[in-house]
Amino acid sequence: MELNEALSLVSERVRGLSRYHLEPRSTTIKLNQNENPNDWPLSIKEEIAQFCTARPWNQYPNFVPETLKGKLADYTGVPASGILVGNGSNEMLLTLLLAFMAGHSRVIICQPTFTVYRLLVNGLGGAETIVRLNADMSYNVEALCGSAAANPRSLLILCSPNNPTGSVLTEEQIRAVLAVQTGFLILDQAYVEFGGFNAVPLLREYPNLIITRTFSKAMAGAGLRLGYMLGRPEIIDEINKIKLPYNINFFSERVAETLLGHIDYMQTRVEQINGERDGLYAFFKTLPLDNVYPSCANFLLIRTKKKRELFEHLAKNGILVRDVSGYPMLENCLRINAGTPEENRALQAAMRSFFGGE
Amino acid sequence: MELNEALSLVSERVRGLSRYHLEPRSTTIKLNQNENPNDWPLSIKEEIAQFCTARPWNQYPNFVPETLKGKLADYTGVPASGILVGNGSNEMLLTLLLAFMAGHSRVIICQPTFTVYRLLVNGLGGAETIVRLNADMSYNVEALCGSAAANPRSLLILCSPNNPTGSVLTEEQIRAVLAVQTGFLILDQAYVEFGGFNAVPLLREYPNLIITRTFSKAMAGAGLRLGYMLGRPEIIDEINKIKLPYNINFFSERVAETLLGHIDYMQTRVEQINGERDGLYAFFKTLPLDNVYPSCANFLLIRTKKKRELFEHLAKNGILVRDVSGYPMLENCLRINAGTPEENRALQAAMRSFFGGE
Repeated sequence: MELNEALSLVSERVRGLSRYHLEPRSTTIKLNQNENPNDWPLSIKEEIAQFCTARPWNQYPNFVPETLKGKLADYTGVPASGILVGNGSNEMLLTLLLAFMAGHSRVIICQPTFTVYRLLVNGLGGAETIVRLNADMSYNVEALCGSAAANPRSLLILCSPNNPTGSVLTEEQIRAVLAVQTGFLILDQAYVEFGGFNAVPLLREYPNLIITRTFSKAMAGAGLRLGYMLGRPEIIDEINKIKLPYNINFFSERVAETLLGHIDYMQTRVEQINGERDGLYAFFKTLPLDNVYPSCANFLLIRTKKKRELFEHLAKNGILVRDVSGYPMLENCLRINAGTPEENRALQAAMRSFFGGE
Repeated sequence: MELNEALSLVSERVRGLSRYHLEPRSTTIKLNQNENPNDWPLSIKEEIAQFCTARPWNQYPNFVPETLKGKLADYTGVPASGILVGNGSNEMLLTLLLAFMAGHSRVIICQPTFTVYRLLVNGLGGAETIVRLNADMSYNVEALCGSAAANPRSLLILCSPNNPTGSVLTEEQIRAVLAVQTGFLILDQAYVEFGGFNAVPLLREYPNLIITRTFSKAMAGAGLRLGYMLGRPEIIDEINKIKLPYNINFFSERVAETLLGHIDYMQTRVEQINGERDGLYAFFKTLPLDNVYPSCANFLLIRTKKKRELFEHLAKNGILVRDVSGYPMLENCLRINAGTPEENRALQAAMRSFFGGE
């Protein structure tokens, strides 16, 4: 067979996808991936290192991570039977799409939002309906409800707090959407520990609601690739049929168990990060930017016609931020997550020196 | 919404799946998961433990695991651009099916074989064509070629050495299949380090061939969930579009890099395991079993009308084997992997005491 013939055998919908790509850049201050800037204390890391030395590497992880699910039940308030754990919330999202989509199902997605939704919906052959955020980056709940009503039994994916805008849906807004939504609602709450309404209490009322969450943000475990979904046990039980067996490795499983024993510590850090984010917001307001958007997450979205020069100026100062100007509605926008107090001071100094030249 | 209404929104094909389940049993000797019975030496584990303590947990893994791909290129002889790494070969298989299937694509699968193929093909809505192995568990290459010719552009999934039978396809047999196969061939070679033809040299000739491999078997890293696929760079580049970003965690990535620096050690252990497997085969032949099948993998398939009692007798002696009697063609069959020499002696003693009572 010729190479071109083999290439033509790759599904057309996958060939049509653009590549999700992140240019690796060496930097000293990483404010580009919405990571928690604080690593875990050495004592916790050493405890895990000891476990890794003792635990046989040649043996499979647990078939069901019961201990981790029990600790997640305590943390989230959702019974263990309503929890599935996976290799990042990315895997949980894919699993949900496999469970809910069949062929050309319609999926309602907001824009701008996390790019992986669209990648997967297109890759799986879904038909997408886009609902744009308002110009101030708040959710257009009326348009969302209209779209849900106009597309019965469609899947709806929402992100609150939303990446990359920081926008949130209130309890009333989520209830308004659920009142008209006749398909599933996947609510990505990766950033919920930083702010916004935590929709867990709604799970009891709405069996078509599934929440995804992660250890990558507030829990400061982006290196682990650990995410989870929360839902009604009967629904989770069905979704579990299409989840890959042995989808989490023993290291991440054990680290997650351990971190859940230090929620107070995490919360103290989250409060600090939120304080830093609010400080950055106030600071950005003093700069000649075109816009700074309010955010309930650990990052801020700014708009400036000089975004290209600002990006390079920050990079020259060892600070990496995220250029999100390719997203719909986000021309000239950068996304910057709150770092440590020291990192944020360096960011402010670099931004001052950039705009001070005006 | 009522719960039953929400349940009806789960895709029919997923609701129709049976649950992949493994009963957890406490045991001292695990011969049920085809694991390598040897853990890695303490010095290697301590090196990694030190790395885990130093490496920030709050930061994402590398976007592309370049170092690991380079070492895999050295190990497999496939250029790094022809390699994708994932969370177990399970994830690689799902990624391949997402790339190659579109809606109701036809997929040719042999039976009996690894159950995850069927789970995923059914879950993704594929139409399956089953080609049974011969009664002696060898591949029916004539039937395979006939099926490939009768179903143009269908996807074909083969496993060599095959789980749970240990059967292999020779180079000539794989070439015969590829000569008539007009769709992709996914060749699962999870056990190839233990024996059988390694199909890597065929990648240069057949762009529609993709090989999947794993760290879970010969590489003694089942706890890591690390698998990879090998193919032509141009094809891998397309498949990469539908792979989830950040799909491997930093721990497994680093362990895999380290283990690839100890291939000689691994090969010595593989030779020992193969010797043990051959010893068990000869021993099983002396027992009043209905059949023992030749195997090129690290496990053996046996058939006995007393399989239920034998399974329980072994369990009582702290030895766990795999009941595969629910697989097509495998009535009364057990699968037993070669353990350490000590474990195999315990197995032999327990089997002798079971059959000695006759």
